[in-house]
Amino acid sequence: MIEQSRVDQPLVGASYGDACPIAAFASVPGRSALTLIRCSGAGTLELAAGVFSAREKLLQAQGNTVLHGWIVAPDSLEGNPKGDKIDEVLVSVFRAPKSYTSEDSLDISCHGGTATGNGVMAALRAAGFRDALPGEFTFRAFMNGKLDLTRCESVMELVSAKTEMGRRNAVSRLSGLLESEINAIKKKLVEVLAGAEIFLDYSEDEIGIDAEEDAGRLPGRRLAEEALARLHRLIESWKRERIYQEGILAVIAGRPNAGKSSLFNLLLREDRSIVTEVPGTTRDWIEAWVSIEGIPVRLVDTAGLRDSQDPVEAIGVERSRTLLENAELVLYLINGTEGITGEDLAFIDEITDRQNSRPLPCIPIWNKTDIAPMPPPQQSAVTNLLGISTKTGTGVSELTASIATAIGGATEPAQAAIGTVRQKNLVEAAAASLEDALSLAEREEPLDLIAPLLREAVNLLGEITGEVSTADILEEMFGKFCVGK
Amino acid sequence: MIEQSRVDQPLVGASYGDACPIAAFASVPGRSALTLIRCSGAGTLELAAGVFSAREKLLQAQGNTVLHGWIVAPDSLEGNPKGDKIDEVLVSVFRAPKSYTSEDSLDISCHGGTATGNGVMAALRAAGFRDALPGEFTFRAFMNGKLDLTRCESVMELVSAKTEMGRRNAVSRLSGLLESEINAIKKKLVEVLAGAEIFLDYSEDEIGIDAEEDAGRLPGRRLAEEALARLHRLIESWKRERIYQEGILAVIAGRPNAGKSSLFNLLLREDRSIVTEVPGTTRDWIEAWVSIEGIPVRLVDTAGLRDSQDPVEAIGVERSRTLLENAELVLYLINGTEGITGEDLAFIDEITDRQNSRPLPCIPIWNKTDIAPMPPPQQSAVTNLLGISTKTGTGVSELTASIATAIGGATEPAQAAIGTVRQKNLVEAAAASLEDALSLAEREEPLDLIAPLLREAVNLLGEITGEVSTADILEEMFGKFCVGK
Repeated sequence: MIEQSRVDQPLVGASYGDACPIAAFASVPGRSALTLIRCSGAGTLELAAGVFSAREKLLQAQGNTVLHGWIVAPDSLEGNPKGDKIDEVLVSVFRAPKSYTSEDSLDISCHGGTATGNGVMAALRAAGFRDALPGEFTFRAFMNGKLDLTRCESVMELVSAKTEMGRRNAVSRLSGLLESEINAIKKKLVEVLAGAEIFLDYSEDEIGIDAEEDAGRLPGRRLAEEALARLHRLIESWKRERIYQEGILAVIAGRPNAGKSSLFNLLLREDRSIVTEVPGTTRDWIEAWVSIEGIPVRLVDTAGLRDSQDPVEAIGVERSRTLLENAELVLYLINGTEGITGEDLAFIDEITDRQNSRPLPCIPIWNKTDIAPMPPPQQSAVTNLLGISTKTGTGVSELTASIATAIGGATEPAQAAIGTVRQKNLVEAAAASLEDALSLAEREEPLDLIAPLLREAVNLLGEITGEVSTADILEEMFGKFCVGK
Repeated sequence: MIEQSRVDQPLVGASYGDACPIAAFASVPGRSALTLIRCSGAGTLELAAGVFSAREKLLQAQGNTVLHGWIVAPDSLEGNPKGDKIDEVLVSVFRAPKSYTSEDSLDISCHGGTATGNGVMAALRAAGFRDALPGEFTFRAFMNGKLDLTRCESVMELVSAKTEMGRRNAVSRLSGLLESEINAIKKKLVEVLAGAEIFLDYSEDEIGIDAEEDAGRLPGRRLAEEALARLHRLIESWKRERIYQEGILAVIAGRPNAGKSSLFNLLLREDRSIVTEVPGTTRDWIEAWVSIEGIPVRLVDTAGLRDSQDPVEAIGVERSRTLLENAELVLYLINGTEGITGEDLAFIDEITDRQNSRPLPCIPIWNKTDIAPMPPPQQSAVTNLLGISTKTGTGVSELTASIATAIGGATEPAQAAIGTVRQKNLVEAAAASLEDALSLAEREEPLDLIAPLLREAVNLLGEITGEVSTADILEEMFGKFCVGK
């Protein structure tokens, strides 16, 4: 069913299941050189030919070729005379099945700006395309067997990646690293399950099993244990991945004139791939996303917050409280020329030992080493003190290394890792079923109790790649994608 | 000279004149399905092949074809092992001269998001591309004779167009409508100039001129007058075009409960191509860009501003003053159930007759016609009162028509029109020279005084299309373009 609707209207009747011709912005419409619009579905070339100046060329175009021409108004486009030029465009033609979706598809590259893209979308709607639902192109790629679910998800991970490391992890999944690992684990379990089912069908004597090898009544138990170990490795991987995806909040604190803003600016300059700077005009603090050893860090300089004589009191104000409550790391600056004061100690104690709240990792930093040398460790009231000079930059690479250690360390992109909460939940559930199965086996329970647990684990792994899936799970998943993807 | 530099570093040594391989984002990098990166210049395919998984395919690719593959890290990319996958991409190949710039070019379509685009740009820089200067692709298209200057400028007009009408006007220039008109006018003047030069070379008797036909000693004077009339038509066109490009600020005012917010919402709903809604969270007023008969209108609802008992006093607060000082139109709402009050009259008088400031066009509107019929014109204290019901929508199309009339009326996109201040200044200067020439001719001054003025007019028209141009003018013009265009 073809719906001609506007972006801001609900798509009555549209659903992920149909094969309608769909169209959507694939790049952010705005002040840029070009805007990309994507079309896909049955009849795409024929419909688009109705609004393209080089009609016959488009109908006869081979796949993977680019045509130059104009999008022109069709009969039915309100406010534009038929044939009115909308925009000069390049149209990339993809013929099924050699396209992202496996359907006939077009990428239309229009001039940038809002009006051109809106004009071209209006012409496409009038021609019979409906607005694509979020993630609908990738959904079709999945349904047509182009991508498994882990690779579909990696596509959105890529879009959301905040740092180079986040991109690299997502690319490993886009290449199929997680998919292969899941399939390899599943294959082992299917083997175990097959063995168990043979046991269920025949008696022990008939097939002559070596009871020594298959201790605990579960044939292939070692395979199952190996699968479980690999599932646990995947679960572990998520802890690192989550940090790379979501980043952490790090707050710079310290007494007045300790050099908070200087440290903030220094870390910003050091970072060679700043992600976003949040304009600080309407805020009392300044913040920016920086990449520290590939980890996205939302760095907050609290210098703008009221500096009271008592820093513990000062951070008592509502806003710093909220910041610190959500912080995952505090960089506490000590003014070297004044030495470690009682206020400094009180703050560090408060942060790291808070009774009524979770203690925070805190890196105490002795600033101004260029004019005030750091006290020797045995004479310092603060342990693990790190010396820097925000003026000369001395010590800053030690600081970033120490930040990276404090928040999780480096990852190994060559290893399969989990990329989404959905994947994590399914891997955990599969691991739980497998653990139950193994502990039943340990207690020598009958195989007809164990086999269903193994089957459940296999099914849960199948859900991860999408081999086993239900319509509502898919809709929920793709509904979180951006439109045009 | 090839500069490998980062976007945020100055492009030392880069200049519009070279033919270096350049690369730039062509779409807004951000949370979107795809990001487009554009490359152009000598050696583009060879350099890109060094960071593309299907190296040989790219080197042998025909023009206007699309390849699928991965951008991979070259040797020299810091932090990435050689061959490391950066992103899965589609590469559209364009062979000189069949490309936007007339050079070998590529459009690389990567996954959206910041990290992927940055990764691909880093790989391209390592491969030998430098970051493109603003408008450099279009600059090259101009230098290589693909587009004249009016068409180059229309490309940026398209990007900036706020409404469908703005887009349509820009498209008319992109199609060459202004270019042809300028060339046609210039051709006439060249003819006149040629005639004048013959006169300068030979005496009157020798060539036997009919003095009747060429009154005032200028042969071809009628042609010159016709050219001048066409230049004046172009100058006139700019008044409308400017409004379509920049839009106007319209403020909704009125006493409390006159229905200001209802009118605001009604006009928003009526508009089928809302451009931007400005989130009103941090403001005391709400505003949105709406398109009224194709004119971009920044509509402001002052309902959030302090409603005092005395509206003249109320608008005296600092913010409404600024708004009204910048407004180009006021929609003044009268609460029909209360009738026209003294305060209403005082406000309308203040706005339309202000002694110390420019008077504002004001449309007085009688609201709530559904329950309070409008007084007959002869009994109304306010002239040209317009009746509407923000509840039922009655009268709203009369209102939008009357807004359009108040701010400039419709345009004729089929006629050539001026699109930029640069063009307007040059057309005005050409018209001034031509006027001077004609008035000298009128006073029967010698042709050797008149001919240089005609030549100047011809040169000024040549500057508009870029036939005559200097490097600094071009740099200034293209420097205002966005990067990637």
